[in-house]
Amino acid sequence: MHIGRGIPQGRETGLRSSTTTGQVWSDIVLNEAGTRALTMYFAPGSRTHWHRHQGGQLLYTIAGQGWIQERDGESATLGPGDVCWTEPGVEHWHGSAPDSQLIQLAVHFGDVEWGPGVADEEYRLP
Amino acid sequence: MHIGRGIPQGRETGLRSSTTTGQVWSDIVLNEAGTRALTMYFAPGSRTHWHRHQGGQLLYTIAGQGWIQERDGESATLGPGDVCWTEPGVEHWHGSAPDSQLIQLAVHFGDVEWGPGVADEEYRLP
Repeated sequence: MHIGRGIPQGRETGLRSSTTTGQVWSDIVLNEAGTRALTMYFAPGSRTHWHRHQGGQLLYTIAGQGWIQERDGESATLGPGDVCWTEPGVEHWHGSAPDSQLIQLAVHFGDVEWGPGVADEEYRLP
Repeated sequence: MHIGRGIPQGRETGLRSSTTTGQVWSDIVLNEAGTRALTMYFAPGSRTHWHRHQGGQLLYTIAGQGWIQERDGESATLGPGDVCWTEPGVEHWHGSAPDSQLIQLAVHFGDVEWGPGVADEEYRLP
Protein backbone atom coordinates (compact mmCIF):
# COMPACT_ATOMS: atom_id res chain seq x y z
CA MET A 1 0.00 0.00 0.00
CA HIS A 2 1.36 3.40 -0.99
CA ILE A 3 -0.46 6.59 -0.07
CA GLY A 4 -0.06 10.14 -1.35
CA ARG A 5 -1.67 12.52 1.09
CA GLY A 6 -4.11 15.29 0.32
CA ILE A 7 -4.21 17.78 -2.49
CA PRO A 8 -0.83 19.48 -2.36
CA GLN A 9 -0.78 23.24 -2.38
CA GLY A 10 0.96 23.95 -5.68
CA ARG A 11 4.18 24.91 -3.94
CA GLU A 12 6.63 27.19 -5.66
CA THR A 13 8.96 24.33 -6.48
CA GLY A 14 6.13 22.69 -8.40
CA LEU A 15 5.90 25.52 -10.93
CA ARG A 16 6.77 24.08 -14.32
CA SER A 17 8.10 25.98 -17.27
CA SER A 18 10.04 23.78 -19.70
CA THR A 19 7.01 21.69 -20.67
CA THR A 20 4.18 24.18 -20.21
CA THR A 21 2.77 27.46 -21.52
CA GLY A 22 1.35 29.86 -18.94
CA GLN A 23 1.37 28.97 -15.26
CA VAL A 24 1.15 25.31 -14.37
CA TRP A 25 2.02 23.73 -11.02
CA SER A 26 2.29 20.02 -10.44
CA ASP A 27 2.93 17.85 -7.42
CA ILE A 28 3.63 14.15 -7.58
CA VAL A 29 1.38 12.35 -5.12
CA LEU A 30 2.20 8.80 -6.11
CA ASN A 31 4.98 7.10 -8.06
CA GLU A 32 4.82 3.32 -7.98
CA ALA A 33 5.72 0.62 -10.46
CA GLY A 34 5.41 2.83 -13.53
CA THR A 35 2.15 4.40 -12.33
CA ARG A 36 2.43 8.07 -11.50
CA ALA A 37 -0.27 10.38 -10.11
CA LEU A 38 0.11 14.15 -10.11
CA THR A 39 -2.13 16.96 -8.95
CA MET A 40 -1.92 19.69 -11.58
CA TYR A 41 -2.97 23.33 -11.28
CA PHE A 42 -3.48 25.46 -14.38
CA ALA A 43 -4.02 29.23 -14.29
CA PRO A 44 -6.55 30.37 -16.93
CA GLY A 45 -5.30 29.79 -20.49
CA SER A 46 -2.39 27.58 -19.40
CA ARG A 47 -1.54 24.22 -20.93
CA THR A 48 1.03 21.49 -21.21
CA HIS A 49 3.19 21.05 -24.27
CA TRP A 50 2.25 18.30 -26.68
CA HIS A 51 3.23 14.96 -25.19
CA ARG A 52 2.71 11.20 -25.28
CA HIS A 53 2.41 8.65 -22.48
CA GLN A 54 3.92 5.26 -23.20
CA GLY A 55 1.16 3.50 -21.26
CA GLY A 56 -1.66 6.04 -21.63
CA GLN A 57 -3.13 8.61 -19.26
CA LEU A 58 -6.22 8.95 -17.12
CA LEU A 59 -7.26 12.52 -16.28
CA TYR A 60 -9.71 13.21 -13.47
CA THR A 61 -10.93 16.80 -13.31
CA ILE A 62 -11.29 17.95 -9.70
CA ALA A 63 -12.30 21.59 -10.20
CA GLY A 64 -12.58 24.21 -12.91
CA GLN A 65 -12.89 23.77 -16.66
CA GLY A 66 -10.30 22.07 -18.84
CA TRP A 67 -9.56 21.41 -22.47
CA ILE A 68 -7.85 18.44 -24.05
CA GLN A 69 -6.87 17.94 -27.66
CA GLU A 70 -5.25 15.10 -29.55
CA ARG A 71 -2.97 15.53 -32.53
CA ASP A 72 -5.59 14.10 -34.89
CA GLY A 73 -7.83 17.03 -34.00
CA GLU A 74 -10.17 15.32 -31.54
CA SER A 75 -10.84 17.62 -28.61
CA ALA A 76 -13.11 17.96 -25.60
CA THR A 77 -13.97 20.15 -22.64
CA LEU A 78 -13.59 18.61 -19.19
CA GLY A 79 -15.44 19.60 -16.03
CA PRO A 80 -15.47 18.39 -12.42
CA GLY A 81 -15.94 14.66 -12.12
CA ASP A 82 -15.10 13.93 -15.76
CA VAL A 83 -12.67 11.12 -16.48
CA CYS A 84 -10.72 11.13 -19.74
CA TRP A 85 -8.58 8.28 -21.03
CA THR A 86 -5.88 8.98 -23.62
CA GLU A 87 -4.56 5.91 -25.41
CA PRO A 88 -0.89 4.92 -25.13
CA GLY A 89 1.34 6.85 -27.52
CA VAL A 90 -1.31 9.35 -28.64
CA GLU A 91 0.10 12.87 -28.80
CA HIS A 92 -2.05 15.37 -26.94
CA TRP A 93 -2.08 18.37 -24.63
CA HIS A 94 -4.37 19.40 -21.77
CA GLY A 95 -4.90 22.61 -19.90
CA SER A 96 -7.39 25.13 -18.57
CA ALA A 97 -10.09 27.00 -20.48
CA PRO A 98 -9.16 30.64 -21.19
CA ASP A 99 -11.42 31.95 -18.43
CA SER A 100 -11.08 29.26 -15.77
CA GLN A 101 -8.72 27.79 -13.26
CA LEU A 102 -8.29 24.03 -13.48
CA ILE A 103 -7.24 21.35 -11.02
CA GLN A 104 -6.74 17.82 -12.34
CA LEU A 105 -5.45 14.53 -11.06
CA ALA A 106 -3.33 13.08 -13.86
CA VAL A 107 -2.55 9.37 -13.66
CA HIS A 108 -0.10 8.21 -16.26
CA PHE A 109 1.66 5.01 -17.09
CA GLY A 110 5.18 4.58 -18.32
CA ASP A 111 7.53 7.19 -19.76
CA VAL A 112 6.52 10.60 -21.09
CA GLU A 113 7.79 11.87 -24.43
CA TRP A 114 7.59 15.66 -24.71
CA GLY A 115 6.94 17.56 -27.93
CA PRO A 116 6.61 21.23 -28.89
CA GLY A 117 4.60 23.88 -27.08
CA VAL A 118 0.97 24.58 -27.94
CA ALA A 119 0.76 27.85 -29.86
CA ASP A 120 -2.10 30.26 -29.21
CA GLU A 121 -3.74 29.35 -32.53
CA GLU A 122 -3.57 25.63 -31.67
CA TYR A 123 -4.94 26.33 -28.23
CA ARG A 124 -8.18 27.69 -29.69
CA LEU A 125 -10.45 24.70 -30.04
CA PRO A 126 -12.17 23.97 -33.38
CA MET B 1 -9.90 9.61 -26.32
CA HIS B 2 -12.62 8.15 -24.13
CA ILE B 3 -14.54 10.33 -21.69
CA GLY B 4 -16.80 9.42 -18.78
CA ARG B 5 -18.90 12.41 -17.85
CA GLY B 6 -19.39 13.87 -14.42
CA ILE B 7 -19.90 12.22 -11.08
CA PRO B 8 -22.87 9.89 -11.61
CA GLN B 9 -25.68 10.11 -9.14
CA GLY B 10 -25.53 6.70 -7.52
CA ARG B 11 -28.59 5.49 -9.38
CA GLU B 12 -30.67 2.68 -8.00
CA THR B 13 -29.27 0.21 -10.51
CA GLY B 14 -25.81 0.95 -9.17
CA LEU B 15 -26.63 -0.37 -5.70
CA ARG B 16 -24.41 -3.36 -5.08
CA SER B 17 -25.09 -6.20 -2.70
CA SER B 18 -23.28 -9.41 -3.65
CA THR B 19 -19.81 -7.94 -3.08
CA THR B 20 -20.50 -5.36 -0.36
CA THR B 21 -21.64 -4.97 3.23
CA GLY B 22 -23.92 -2.04 4.00
CA GLN B 23 -24.98 0.35 1.27
CA VAL B 24 -22.56 0.85 -1.61
CA TRP B 25 -23.36 2.32 -5.01
CA SER B 26 -21.01 2.25 -7.95
CA ASP B 27 -21.12 3.67 -11.46
CA ILE B 28 -18.64 2.80 -14.17
CA VAL B 29 -17.37 5.98 -15.76
CA LEU B 30 -14.66 4.47 -17.94
CA ASN B 31 -13.84 1.00 -19.21
CA GLU B 32 -11.00 0.91 -21.71
CA ALA B 33 -8.30 -1.60 -22.48
CA GLY B 34 -8.37 -3.26 -19.07
CA THR B 35 -8.49 0.07 -17.21
CA ARG B 36 -11.74 0.65 -15.39
CA ALA B 37 -12.79 3.74 -13.40
CA LEU B 38 -15.76 3.72 -11.05
CA THR B 39 -17.31 6.33 -8.83
CA MET B 40 -18.20 4.61 -5.56
CA TYR B 41 -20.54 5.84 -2.82
CA PHE B 42 -20.43 4.29 0.64
CA ALA B 43 -23.00 5.01 3.35
CA PRO B 44 -21.41 5.18 6.84
CA GLY B 45 -19.93 1.85 7.94
CA SER B 46 -20.20 0.26 4.48
CA ARG B 47 -17.41 -1.60 2.73
CA THR B 48 -16.50 -3.89 -0.13
CA HIS B 49 -15.80 -7.56 0.36
CA TRP B 50 -12.19 -8.64 0.38
CA HIS B 51 -10.89 -8.60 -3.19
CA ARG B 52 -7.79 -8.53 -5.40
CA HIS B 53 -7.06 -6.60 -8.59
CA GLN B 54 -4.96 -8.45 -11.13
CA GLY B 55 -3.20 -5.22 -12.16
CA GLY B 56 -3.56 -3.20 -8.96
CA GLN B 57 -5.84 -0.36 -7.93
CA LEU B 58 -5.58 3.40 -7.51
CA LEU B 59 -8.12 4.96 -5.13
CA TYR B 60 -8.74 8.70 -5.19
CA THR B 61 -10.90 9.95 -2.31
CA ILE B 62 -13.25 12.69 -3.49
CA ALA B 63 -15.22 13.36 -0.30
CA GLY B 64 -15.77 11.93 3.17
CA GLN B 65 -13.56 9.62 5.19
CA GLY B 66 -12.54 6.15 4.15
CA TRP B 67 -10.73 3.12 5.46
CA ILE B 68 -8.62 0.60 3.60
CA GLN B 69 -7.05 -2.57 4.92
CA GLU B 70 -4.85 -5.22 3.38
CA ARG B 71 -4.89 -8.89 4.33
CA ASP B 72 -1.48 -8.62 5.97
CA GLY B 73 -2.97 -6.15 8.43
CA GLU B 74 -1.69 -2.89 6.97
CA SER B 75 -4.43 -0.28 7.11
CA ALA B 76 -4.99 3.43 6.64
CA THR B 77 -7.57 6.18 6.76
CA LEU B 78 -8.22 8.12 3.57
CA GLY B 79 -9.51 11.68 3.24
CA PRO B 80 -10.29 14.02 0.36
CA GLY B 81 -7.42 14.32 -2.10
CA ASP B 82 -5.61 11.22 -0.86
CA VAL B 83 -4.37 8.75 -3.45
CA CYS B 84 -3.81 5.11 -2.45
CA TRP B 85 -2.12 2.48 -4.59
CA THR B 86 -2.77 -1.20 -3.87
CA GLU B 87 -0.30 -3.59 -5.49
CA PRO B 88 -1.46 -6.19 -8.00
CA GLY B 89 -2.87 -9.32 -6.36
CA VAL B 90 -2.92 -7.92 -2.82
CA GLU B 91 -6.15 -8.84 -1.04
CA HIS B 92 -7.83 -5.82 0.56
CA TRP B 93 -11.10 -4.06 1.22
CA HIS B 94 -12.08 -0.40 1.31
CA GLY B 95 -15.07 1.47 2.62
CA SER B 96 -16.35 4.37 4.69
CA ALA B 97 -15.54 5.22 8.29
CA PRO B 98 -18.36 4.30 10.71
CA ASP B 99 -19.52 7.90 11.01
CA SER B 100 -18.93 9.25 7.53
CA GLN B 101 -20.14 9.08 3.97
CA LEU B 102 -17.46 8.34 1.39
CA ILE B 103 -17.11 9.04 -2.32
CA GLN B 104 -14.13 7.55 -4.12
CA LEU B 105 -12.90 7.24 -7.67
CA ALA B 106 -11.56 3.69 -8.00
CA VAL B 107 -9.29 3.01 -10.96
CA HIS B 108 -8.40 -0.63 -11.34
CA PHE B 109 -6.51 -2.70 -13.81
CA GLY B 110 -7.34 -6.19 -15.04
CA ASP B 111 -9.73 -8.68 -13.54
CA VAL B 112 -11.16 -8.59 -10.00
CA GLU B 113 -11.15 -11.67 -7.80
CA TRP B 114 -13.75 -11.45 -5.02
CA GLY B 115 -13.34 -13.01 -1.59
CA PRO B 116 -15.45 -13.16 1.57
CA GLY B 117 -17.28 -10.29 3.22
CA VAL B 118 -15.65 -8.12 5.89
CA ALA B 119 -17.07 -9.02 9.27
CA ASP B 120 -17.79 -6.32 11.85
CA GLU B 121 -14.79 -7.40 13.91
CA GLU B 122 -12.49 -7.19 10.87
CA TYR B 123 -13.95 -3.81 9.97
CA ARG B 124 -12.71 -2.32 13.22
CA LEU B 125 -9.23 -1.06 12.49
CA PRO B 126 -6.31 -2.05 14.72
